[in-house]
Amino acid sequence: METYKHTIQYYETDKMGVTHHSNYIRWMEEARVDFLDKLGWSYVKLEENGIISPVTSIECKFVKGTTFAQVITVETSIEELKNVKIGLNYIMKDGDGNVVCKGKSEHCFLDASGRFISIAKEFPDFYKVLEETFRKSE
Amino acid sequence: METYKHTIQYYETDKMGVTHHSNYIRWMEEARVDFLDKLGWSYVKLEENGIISPVTSIECKFVKGTTFAQVITVETSIEELKNVKIGLNYIMKDGDGNVVCKGKSEHCFLDASGRFISIAKEFPDFYKVLEETFRKSE
Amino acid sequence: METYKHTIQYYETDKMGVTHHSNYIRWMEEARVDFLDKLGWSYVKLEENGIISPVTSIECKFVKGTTFAQVITVETSIEELKNVKIGLNYIMKDGDGNVVCKGKSEHCFLDASGRFISIAKEFPDFYKVLEETFRKSE
Amino acid sequence: METYKHTIQYYETDKMGVTHHSNYIRWMEEARVDFLDKLGWSYVKLEENGIISPVTSIECKFVKGTTFAQVITVETSIEELKNVKIGLNYIMKDGDGNVVCKGKSEHCFLDASGRFISIAKEFPDFYKVLEETFRKSE
Repeated sequence: METYKHTIQYYETDKMGVTHHSNYIRWMEEARVDFLDKLGWSYVKLEENGIISPVTSIECKFVKGTTFAQVITVETSIEELKNVKIGLNYIMKDGDGNVVCKGKSEHCFLDASGRFISIAKEFPDFYKVLEETFRKSE
Repeated sequence: METYKHTIQYYETDKMGVTHHSNYIRWMEEARVDFLDKLGWSYVKLEENGIISPVTSIECKFVKGTTFAQVITVETSIEELKNVKIGLNYIMKDGDGNVVCKGKSEHCFLDASGRFISIAKEFPDFYKVLEETFRKSE
Repeated sequence: METYKHTIQYYETDKMGVTHHSNYIRWMEEARVDFLDKLGWSYVKLEENGIISPVTSIECKFVKGTTFAQVITVETSIEELKNVKIGLNYIMKDGDGNVVCKGKSEHCFLDASGRFISIAKEFPDFYKVLEETFRKSE
Repeated sequence: METYKHTIQYYETDKMGVTHHSNYIRWMEEARVDFLDKLGWSYVKLEENGIISPVTSIECKFVKGTTFAQVITVETSIEELKNVKIGLNYIMKDGDGNVVCKGKSEHCFLDASGRFISIAKEFPDFYKVLEETFRKSE
């Protein structure tokens, strides 16, 4: 489990006084970018290799409200790994270790022309790293 | 099914050239606000009545990419209706009628002190409107 | 003066209970897109013609707080027109006609390779439309 | 000059491939929050003391485009200090030390009822810290 920290900004709150729920989706992206970066396959490297990885689905369960100035920890792990798609899990906690949100995202792998890429075949080094990380989180 | 229209803004796109996925969550809120407004129970009226209705979960399946200047139609319907919670469904379509995204959101009803409110008991008028709308969408 | 309407969204508010100031910058973009569209030179058409028009500076004076569900009117006008740049003015008003924000933006015209474009020379039709609109707003 | 670092997120880019200009306004807020925090007068402490400090004007000159994954440094300094208002300056630089954006913001000080607060009189400790910081940056 890789850990990422996000400090809640004022502009992320809404008039209810808490974090607007749409921002958790953005923190999941921040954590995912950081996660891939730590695996040695940053978004920048992926794009340089012609790999595009759009989000195909997203899910969030909001457990506990958060607000401005809190530091949120996001633990990212691989839930599912297939040739052409990947599923990620995100556990977000506040400073006291309380779970505040549980998220999931699914992504496919495409080349620049929008064709599916089999990561296992075309980028075996990347696939190996994902597979090892996947096994560790099981 | 109530229909809401959103014109995709430049600031909603990302460097992939398409709408950033986090914005669909915001369009669901726009459509929900409009939906409740048309039912005669706007967010403003709900807050005036001391009803707070936070999002407890959210889900999105991204079917087809969209981009700047497209007009997206969001059809909102009630999927589930309980005393203290409600589930909504959102079908988003582009100008050609293609489904671009399917979303769901769940909400509970709280008072200002964070206590659950039974809409059926405490706001029977509101509950009746929701129930009628729910039946129509089945 | 072209008029554009924006309904303030819940996600645009912050924990002070009012619209977060960064959103006015986005409404200026919305109004600008609408303004150019009404002049017959939409962003899409500009990009099809290879014209990129990045924002080079921005300015906002916040006169009166606004909040969720208010409908804001944005009047856009041309303040300055040069060969390679344009300055726009935005007056934003609430439903009672009170000015809530005054904005300015400056833009240059570039081609795909980042070279300055002289609109007057290379796109005389577009320049003519801008000049006529500019004269009317003086 | 206090320095703050912001890593540009994917969701902050637009279809031009660069950072959308509205985000610089948000980074100014992030840097301002950090700046006041380091001065011992965090936003949270200000709000606990009943001090509200809305943005009254904002200004940005965009010097050089930035994009995803770049780390931007924001140097915040006090440009003007009056009893009831403060002006801040922001210099944003990329990793090579190039200035990418110059910003300004003005803020007034209000109490919960919206009445102007004289910081010098009502919060002399806070004013003293601001004044010392202001003198150092001249």
